[in-house]
Amino acid sequence: MQDLRTPALILDRARLRANLDRMAARAAALGVNLRPHMKTAKSIDVARMATKDQAGGITVSTLAEADYFARAGFTDILYGVGITPDKLADVAAVQALGADLKLILDNPDCARLVVARAKELSGPFRFLIEIDSGQHRTGLLPDDPKVLECARILTDSDGCDVLGVMTHAGHSYDCSSIDAVRRVAEAERAAVVAAAETLRAAAIPCPIVSVGSTPTALYAEHLDGVTEMRPGVYMFGDLFQHSIGSCGLDDLALSVLTSVNAWRADEGRAMVDAGAMALSLDRGAPDENGAHAFGMAADIHGRPLPGQPRIRQVNQEHGFLPGLEEAPDIGTRLRIFPNHACATAAKYSHYHVIDETGRIIDTWQRTTGW
Amino acid sequence: MQDLRTPALILDRARLRANLDRMAARAAALGVNLRPHMKTAKSIDVARMATKDQAGGITVSTLAEADYFARAGFTDILYGVGITPDKLADVAAVQALGADLKLILDNPDCARLVVARAKELSGPFRFLIEIDSGQHRTGLLPDDPKVLECARILTDSDGCDVLGVMTHAGHSYDCSSIDAVRRVAEAERAAVVAAAETLRAAAIPCPIVSVGSTPTALYAEHLDGVTEMRPGVYMFGDLFQHSIGSCGLDDLALSVLTSVNAWRADEGRAMVDAGAMALSLDRGAPDENGAHAFGMAADIHGRPLPGQPRIRQVNQEHGFLPGLEEAPDIGTRLRIFPNHACATAAKYSHYHVIDETGRIIDTWQRTTGW
Repeated sequence: MQDLRTPALILDRARLRANLDRMAARAAALGVNLRPHMKTAKSIDVARMATKDQAGGITVSTLAEADYFARAGFTDILYGVGITPDKLADVAAVQALGADLKLILDNPDCARLVVARAKELSGPFRFLIEIDSGQHRTGLLPDDPKVLECARILTDSDGCDVLGVMTHAGHSYDCSSIDAVRRVAEAERAAVVAAAETLRAAAIPCPIVSVGSTPTALYAEHLDGVTEMRPGVYMFGDLFQHSIGSCGLDDLALSVLTSVNAWRADEGRAMVDAGAMALSLDRGAPDENGAHAFGMAADIHGRPLPGQPRIRQVNQEHGFLPGLEEAPDIGTRLRIFPNHACATAAKYSHYHVIDETGRIIDTWQRTTGW
Repeated sequence: MQDLRTPALILDRARLRANLDRMAARAAALGVNLRPHMKTAKSIDVARMATKDQAGGITVSTLAEADYFARAGFTDILYGVGITPDKLADVAAVQALGADLKLILDNPDCARLVVARAKELSGPFRFLIEIDSGQHRTGLLPDDPKVLECARILTDSDGCDVLGVMTHAGHSYDCSSIDAVRRVAEAERAAVVAAAETLRAAAIPCPIVSVGSTPTALYAEHLDGVTEMRPGVYMFGDLFQHSIGSCGLDDLALSVLTSVNAWRADEGRAMVDAGAMALSLDRGAPDENGAHAFGMAADIHGRPLPGQPRIRQVNQEHGFLPGLEEAPDIGTRLRIFPNHACATAAKYSHYHVIDETGRIIDTWQRTTGW
């Protein structure tokens, strides 16, 4: 890492492995499949590690990811953003690569348009109905008659079918305690299981009952009636997940390697070559005083610096780091743990993978775009 | 644009051309060279248009850009972020491509380290001394003895030399009136001209006296003593530049094409497929009430929707747009003008270029990374 051009994205393989093992054990203990969400890592190498010995396929957030993973041989893929008819031809193109690309929707009007479009394409297209388990972003409430209406529109059509129900408890990110996460996890489970029962009562098979967020996956007390979960950011962790109790600082697998460009004694701060472009502008992890920052500084070995100083200000290619105990030399290398792994990783085309000793052992590509 | 997979980055060539012409005319009227900053566009095609009939070379914000433009035949390149010795070998590699890659620094300690490192490499390395004209981010105050000290360290060495002085009036972005921008522009000019005079009084030639920011380039009353200016975001414009008077809404050349995924009558808002990943989390352009948003919605022709509604909330792949006069159909295509063109463009690998009629006439690649 002393020789890499900075800023650069560093992935600690041992920490990644430990995070994957921990979530795989959780899925096993809860008796559900693990369908990891690849929206954070967007990497074939990480996906292979995350799905090793797992039967649950993967989740993706864009059709570009679906295409990328399908070309790498992944065959069971859930596209976790509501489908619209204009995207169905691109779905068919991914399916032509040999992947079973499952889709979601939550709206009868959309279902009718999709069914009409599907007739013009080579399907079949298979769907999960999206349920709102409390985030109130997308999805139907489990007792909404439209759940069954959507399912009927699809099952009554040629070329479309229903495989089950899914939800995402994104509001678990707003929880301020583990107990609160547990309550959200139970609401997530109960909502999607209720919707599954509605479908089954109408004689519509519902083999997939899917939940997913990293906090609820970690803290759900049980997932009775659920068949799979779709956490994603657990692979890397980040300061936001740390702030809500989903990981320790020692679990953070992703960091940005940066160099000290300057030290201003008058301002008591270092300037580093990781700014808004290298760290992202995500403010998701305020510090213990509620102040926004853009990442926490660690030494080149990944040990947080004394006092856990944070990047307090960024320009496009400059980051400003006050709070150091002593003036760093120009060229000193630091590692910055990001607020939000998804946002920061998206700034890079590849990971530099390190082993336990800090040696760079590999370069893993990641995908981007839509 | 009805057939593109969304979200997609759209560049209006006619507006781009008009913005380029306007700034070229400004440079001519002020009697300075134009060295456009490519940190926003990061595109060879845009750089060729921006430098047509100009003699001033280009500016870049990363060594990846320097390499990319050098490979495309650009020979006069200023790397506008302070150099450190660890990056000098990469500079030499770009120079080996045939480019004169000029560097900046502002610190005698750094200058000594760079001079020592330069001896091990094939130079020459040529520098501008960075001056602080009021932003207090980087650079030396014009009357700081270190200006001359830096220059001496470089001119006394083998393989390094000084070409002049430069500054960036980034604090022009904080101005709330055109008069305030004019005052910053004069401070920017005066600071860098004073520093140039200090060098010349010490018999150090100073052929380059460089200023640059889009607001000061547009509103400086004169640039006597200055030889070049380095604006960048003027090429595209954005809502932030609009908010500080640097461009009109009709000048905005960059937008994100998005599709309506859903309409929630209960919440009175549309959901579109451009979220944080597609728009960026830059909050730089609060609306007329001071509220943060993530871009302004226009129709597919680029006409702002009635009431100029803004994306008020984003998740990773979802954007939420309240304030529409009527419910849009699923699949309706909108264009979102971004808060900050640099941050939004960085999310994409290429531009879809449209002509005056909205027809897509080309695809232009852009570079990324460091």
